[in-house]
Amino acid sequence: MKWTKSYIYTLKETPADAEIVSHKLMVRGGYIKKVSQGIFTYGPLALRSIRKFENIVREELNKRGCVEILMPMVQPKELWQETNRWSEMGKNLLKFKNRTDQEFCLGATHEEIITDFIRRDIKSYRDLPVVLYQIQTKYRDEIRPRFGLLRGREFLMKDAYSFDRDADGAIQNYKLQYAAYTAIFKRLGVNFVSVKADSGNIGGSMSEEFHILAEAGEDALLVSENGDFAANVEVCPAIDATPHVSSDKELKVLEKFATTGLKSIDDLSKFLKIEAKNLVKTLFYSAAEEGAKDIKPVCVLLRGSDELNSVKLKTLLDLSNPPLMLTDEEVKQVTTAWPGSCGPVGLKIPIYMDNGVEGLKNYVVGANEDGFHLRNVNHDRDFKPTKIADLRTARHGDKSPNGKGLLKSYRGIEVGHIFYLGSKYSKVMNASYLNEKSEATFIEMGCYGIGISRTVQAVIEQCNDKDGIIWPVSIAPFHVHICLLDPQDAETAKYTNSIYEELLSLGVECLLDDREERPGVKFKDADLLGMPLRLNIGKRGVSANEIEMVIRKSKETIKISLKNVVQEVSSWVKSQM
Amino acid sequence: MKWTKSYIYTLKETPADAEIVSHKLMVRGGYIKKVSQGIFTYGPLALRSIRKFENIVREELNKRGCVEILMPMVQPKELWQETNRWSEMGKNLLKFKNRTDQEFCLGATHEEIITDFIRRDIKSYRDLPVVLYQIQTKYRDEIRPRFGLLRGREFLMKDAYSFDRDADGAIQNYKLQYAAYTAIFKRLGVNFVSVKADSGNIGGSMSEEFHILAEAGEDALLVSENGDFAANVEVCPAIDATPHVSSDKELKVLEKFATTGLKSIDDLSKFLKIEAKNLVKTLFYSAAEEGAKDIKPVCVLLRGSDELNSVKLKTLLDLSNPPLMLTDEEVKQVTTAWPGSCGPVGLKIPIYMDNGVEGLKNYVVGANEDGFHLRNVNHDRDFKPTKIADLRTARHGDKSPNGKGLLKSYRGIEVGHIFYLGSKYSKVMNASYLNEKSEATFIEMGCYGIGISRTVQAVIEQCNDKDGIIWPVSIAPFHVHICLLDPQDAETAKYTNSIYEELLSLGVECLLDDREERPGVKFKDADLLGMPLRLNIGKRGVSANEIEMVIRKSKETIKISLKNVVQEVSSWVKSQM
Repeated sequence: MKWTKSYIYTLKETPADAEIVSHKLMVRGGYIKKVSQGIFTYGPLALRSIRKFENIVREELNKRGCVEILMPMVQPKELWQETNRWSEMGKNLLKFKNRTDQEFCLGATHEEIITDFIRRDIKSYRDLPVVLYQIQTKYRDEIRPRFGLLRGREFLMKDAYSFDRDADGAIQNYKLQYAAYTAIFKRLGVNFVSVKADSGNIGGSMSEEFHILAEAGEDALLVSENGDFAANVEVCPAIDATPHVSSDKELKVLEKFATTGLKSIDDLSKFLKIEAKNLVKTLFYSAAEEGAKDIKPVCVLLRGSDELNSVKLKTLLDLSNPPLMLTDEEVKQVTTAWPGSCGPVGLKIPIYMDNGVEGLKNYVVGANEDGFHLRNVNHDRDFKPTKIADLRTARHGDKSPNGKGLLKSYRGIEVGHIFYLGSKYSKVMNASYLNEKSEATFIEMGCYGIGISRTVQAVIEQCNDKDGIIWPVSIAPFHVHICLLDPQDAETAKYTNSIYEELLSLGVECLLDDREERPGVKFKDADLLGMPLRLNIGKRGVSANEIEMVIRKSKETIKISLKNVVQEVSSWVKSQM
Repeated sequence: MKWTKSYIYTLKETPADAEIVSHKLMVRGGYIKKVSQGIFTYGPLALRSIRKFENIVREELNKRGCVEILMPMVQPKELWQETNRWSEMGKNLLKFKNRTDQEFCLGATHEEIITDFIRRDIKSYRDLPVVLYQIQTKYRDEIRPRFGLLRGREFLMKDAYSFDRDADGAIQNYKLQYAAYTAIFKRLGVNFVSVKADSGNIGGSMSEEFHILAEAGEDALLVSENGDFAANVEVCPAIDATPHVSSDKELKVLEKFATTGLKSIDDLSKFLKIEAKNLVKTLFYSAAEEGAKDIKPVCVLLRGSDELNSVKLKTLLDLSNPPLMLTDEEVKQVTTAWPGSCGPVGLKIPIYMDNGVEGLKNYVVGANEDGFHLRNVNHDRDFKPTKIADLRTARHGDKSPNGKGLLKSYRGIEVGHIFYLGSKYSKVMNASYLNEKSEATFIEMGCYGIGISRTVQAVIEQCNDKDGIIWPVSIAPFHVHICLLDPQDAETAKYTNSIYEELLSLGVECLLDDREERPGVKFKDADLLGMPLRLNIGKRGVSANEIEMVIRKSKETIKISLKNVVQEVSSWVKSQM
């Protein structure tokens, strides 16, 4: 494609609302343009990358026997009510009424639609297994869209759904999808990792995420030193590298003491000269589902140095979404003190204690009386924990749950997620088949998503330098960026055109910058747009029989004689595929 | 693809809500499945046809220098307010509020979004011309969705937009799109026609529609005998084949007479023994825009045998939408009589007279007194027409406006529509560029749509027989439907598989029916699904060295020896491309 026919407009200024480099580069390169918060138009270059990635996904899924269909974005309330997700999904599900007052939502995911689709067809065990997928536009009404395509409202997604006779089959299909995803992200040519993950409001008992590694990633990941274990921090078991146990031998006498004005663990630690990890903090949450009329207060005990993992608490409490913290007023009602002076002693509500507290003795907690704490507190003696569990957030340096070494932390951008769902959806939507004994049996399901538009930006977030994007060949909008340096010189222009045409005929995709612009402007734009290879063709090079080929990633410049240009370029491109 | 891995489910029963054959066949063939009124899931076969058609469209547009982008489906109110279409579009535009109470709509068309997109980039005449397009999901909140994909709510569309320096350029681009559309529908391999058309609420001064001809088409089309002229009946000038002129020489004396109980033209015609074409009927409309507070009554005079063309009246009155008829009560207020006894004599409102009435003398109209009519009425003497114009609907047998012979009527399904918009959108949205003299100049625009999903069904509506669909090779989901007749016979199965693999390697797309089903079932399904060619491969044929190749359209059966099968089939398929 020639630049002058291509509708490419690069910007010099960095957009004010772009916080991370990939968002900035996509806007500056004219890849995307904001239409509304979290809603974008994809320019021609972005669309080329998106289509290439879609095709990689499609090829790997088709190869594994998956069948492509296309479901609608506008979906009727009735189907979502069957699974109760009409209310459970919360405000991310955008709901509206049509002209005849029927209620619909914009599809944020398609479990209900696909289950309805297949339950009308599948009758016998002979119809199973089957995996269906689509590549389609989705909408989630994110409260705070940001980071461009990484947390957008409207986005492109591949979602696949597997249907099996039994759990064994479903797990086989889950593994097949895992293999497909691994192949897909390998073909992308970026650093990625798969980690154990929480199932969120999709549900199911087994789930893994695929992350493209990048500093700006929203997810914290923990990976064992040998790489055998990897988990999203949301679900990673927390195991102290060295057990943290009190050196006290005996339980001392409980004492109340004044701590006027001391609210935080930090305040207390300084005042008492006790390290935070030897203090115990008390947090209050509601175990009621979001939107419930009444709260169900519970308290959680953690070491002062640890953070609550709200997903672990959600799982412990068997909730659909992470529980909400009580307000200060609610805490006051429950404990008779304001937060900062509260503790477990004397409370009549469930007390969940993180297992990190187990080894402590004679610790300090709030007295449930404003301005007072208790010292020499001991569980079992002074209060009875309802349950002791792993409730804290694991961290870099903790012991790996596979027993091999310590955990290292990474940040990642979630680009894929696979779920084994079991019969969660088929049961409530009555999607069943007759097995070999003619017994009605619920279909076992799995679901598998890849954020298509998100992945394209995540690649940029990983692959860039100070000058711009560095595309991997796999999804580069074009393989080669040809800078025609003297467009008005007829011979140079003619030679450049012939190179361009020859490369195209060999399947090498070229963007030819044929603008009347100075070389400096063209080089800057080429670096910004990020095609893997740049060819500089100017009058001087042509007469000197020496063309410059610049590798975008390494900035290495290779000089090639005219007659070898096509061959050198095409073999470099092919070597990268 | 093998049937047993394909997710194809055909139905025996015809769906209750399908009124036309293409809708019935798409549902029975498992091509589409209803999710809600006017909202469907596309099965794997339909998606293949859709993708093939998309690619034809894409190739023809890319070839002509158009650039593909992708705009969002969720669009902010603010942009639609700039053109006033937030209100003008009426209830077909589905509007809603998001979680933060901002207003959005689902894109029914993208003039606002694209104009906003380009106005941020285009600065100079050097940036023009450019044609951008997308293939994308749209939503129109049809009040009465029917006919499957033909009048659906959610659908796939290709929409293109051209941007030019001036009207000449815009008209050149309009012609280029006309050529592209002609090429696209020719490649489809169906009977189509392009006709002059109304611009509806898209606007602009020049517009043509592309129709696939089919009896069940919603549009009436009129085409001159030599094919040089073609128009949608909505805009076709009405010219009597032989001028219809009264034989009376003199104007007779006006008389009132009783017509108690005679309401319709038919009643009057019988009672007076005067042909309807010699009677004059009076209709009442409001010239106010839809939703206006007050009506603006006007009356329209037509020969008793003619029908009002509401689009012509809309154009005459310069309205955005066809005008609404007055209610009986409103007519009574305006004329002092109920409809059936009304006429132009003595009225104080604008009187628009169809030019077909011009040649009549001494005619009968209502007396504006219940139960009475006037005879020997003459325009100019008894009332003064505000304007005489072409207001009736043209019909089969009228004179062709190009002066060459008579008009023939057809019915068509609108699948494409091209519009020359001028500066309608660029003016109100301030999309301008600096011309060579550095003067700010509004961009000249055109817009061009093709209903992607609609076209696929329209092809079926034209191409079918009592047994099912007859796909043209261009967008057939598969070229060849192979019926393996004795799947349990190892040799037959092996031979069939080798034929299947060989054909695939030659680029011939095959659906292999490998089910354990009787031949009759397979043949019926093959006819229903409609691939252009069927191969019957059974034990008997293989041993007799004679394979049956059945052409779906003609039902012709050709016997081929084993060694020639691959060559015969692939050359037949290629001959149809």
